Amino acid sequence: MNELEFIARIIPMLASNDAIVKGAGDDCAVIDVGVNGRWLLFKTDAVVEGIHFLKHADPQKVGRKALARCLSDIAAMAGEPVCALITIGLQQNFDFCYVEKVYLGINQLAQRYGVAVAGGETTTSPERIFISVSLIGFVEKDKCIFRNGARPGDAIFVSGELGGSIEGKHFDFEPRIEQARWLAERFKPTAMIDISDGLATDLRHITTEVGLGAELLESAIPISQDAKRRYRNIIGAKPPLAAALTDGEDFELLFTVPASSAVALLDSWKCNFPELELSCIGRVLDRPEIKIRSKNGVIDFNQYGYIHFA
Amino acid sequence: MNELEFIARIIPMLASNDAIVKGAGDDCAVIDVGVNGRWLLFKTDAVVEGIHFLKHADPQKVGRKALARCLSDIAAMAGEPVCALITIGLQQNFDFCYVEKVYLGINQLAQRYGVAVAGGETTTSPERIFISVSLIGFVEKDKCIFRNGARPGDAIFVSGELGGSIEGKHFDFEPRIEQARWLAERFKPTAMIDISDGLATDLRHITTEVGLGAELLESAIPISQDAKRRYRNIIGAKPPLAAALTDGEDFELLFTVPASSAVALLDSWKCNFPELELSCIGRVLDRPEIKIRSKNGVIDFNQYGYIHFA
Repeated sequence: MNELEFIARIIPMLASNDAIVKGAGDDCAVIDVGVNGRWLLFKTDAVVEGIHFLKHADPQKVGRKALARCLSDIAAMAGEPVCALITIGLQQNFDFCYVEKVYLGINQLAQRYGVAVAGGETTTSPERIFISVSLIGFVEKDKCIFRNGARPGDAIFVSGELGGSIEGKHFDFEPRIEQARWLAERFKPTAMIDISDGLATDLRHITTEVGLGAELLESAIPISQDAKRRYRNIIGAKPPLAAALTDGEDFELLFTVPASSAVALLDSWKCNFPELELSCIGRVLDRPEIKIRSKNGVIDFNQYGYIHFA
Repeated sequence: MNELEFIARIIPMLASNDAIVKGAGDDCAVIDVGVNGRWLLFKTDAVVEGIHFLKHADPQKVGRKALARCLSDIAAMAGEPVCALITIGLQQNFDFCYVEKVYLGINQLAQRYGVAVAGGETTTSPERIFISVSLIGFVEKDKCIFRNGARPGDAIFVSGELGGSIEGKHFDFEPRIEQARWLAERFKPTAMIDISDGLATDLRHITTEVGLGAELLESAIPISQDAKRRYRNIIGAKPPLAAALTDGEDFELLFTVPASSAVALLDSWKCNFPELELSCIGRVLDRPEIKIRSKNGVIDFNQYGYIHFA
């Protein structure tokens, strides 16, 4: 059994109730709690020392990242965050200054987004620090964007640039809440997700997993300067395109809109967010396959296929 | 700086917003999300292998416990749980069967209480499994019971029996949601908390921390059979009264009501919950000190003072 099979086996057995609009399988759980015109969004996520951050990383950045990851999931549903709780696992003789800095990082970002940090817990974790963040938010029912709404022919967009986030963006990324809210208001994407596991993987969540596919245009994929620099400077680094396709933790928005809206969207985005790139990287296909069109033709792309571009 | 000083330093710096009715410092965060007559309750809590459960513990019980702890906090505010999210930290080559059993334990308890399990995450935790649960629920605004409402002269009650939960109750305890809802409806306790860290510690949260105190009646403290058995059978085990006062993870309700309601409450409880003990263990004092009255007189009690009873 692999992880996908495992998840497919667990999800149907999970308890549900009448309040649940969308349970496991989207960026957030969506719950109808009886608020007029709005749904509650609910998300949890953890970062672990040695996995998501190194032992000597700046604790303020670690705290910021822990919250920002959850904010990015609220963004992916076009929601607004409201309140976070923090659970920190620490050694028994932990350094108060370290934890205070973690909270400082969490808190500064929370204040920027009007999010309350309403407490949490510390618990014992002898070997590694972990920070688990829970976040609730709200979204207007008619603006909520799920992963599963793409239609064949839709144009596929991505915000910002991709790849090489390990150089620093994985700490400093900005959750795209403002852009997502604007998109939902003005262009109502048919599907949306934040890119946390890499474009190649997250694209599948909004295409092949719902029986659709995608044709991407190689030259349209926005590759970050960090990905290019890593390839030049680090022996064994991924080729830039491969990095853009498969590196994790970019936390950009990946979404689809009807092709008829694509040009208007690009124009309007440029006026509203002149400092953030928006790229139309391809279109949705009506069959579950992912292809990449380059100057040498169209090739089938699978998750591990990026080496063909090396 | 000790932990209490640390918490006192962190809490005031936390970000807040207009929605927060009660942030850090109670059993749950309480949030006004605009639902008519009700507040949202929000809680997060984690269990860690080797700390809250042993490596070879039944994973179904581990999962059950992880959720039950959060349910107990919803109970302590007299709320009803709605939806949980689960984050599990696991070794990279984790055993799917183990995790499936954890979810089975979570799920069975969730179904009993009408709670949806709307997904979550798995993440990497190389040395120890941890399970972090986030839970939301609701409570009627006029029924929500905080920790800080006790008044001098109030009678202090505790449900069930205390001490020795390590013998099994720490896995099998029943969150007192039904009893708490009934209490809030019929007797509106002035303060309530669930006993997770031991009576001695949790009593302080509803008394000395708000400038009040308590006089307990030694003979009224309900000592569990497990605590008594441990003292008989295990060399070095705490004396039973000490266990009842200081053992953690009983997850019983500790609450205060006006003294004038005490007798009616005891009668009515017996009719409604004949199988669950309810004990009036003392009364609230108007000064921040905790005393215990025994047949030998009244003695001052501090958190580590239980050895006087040995």
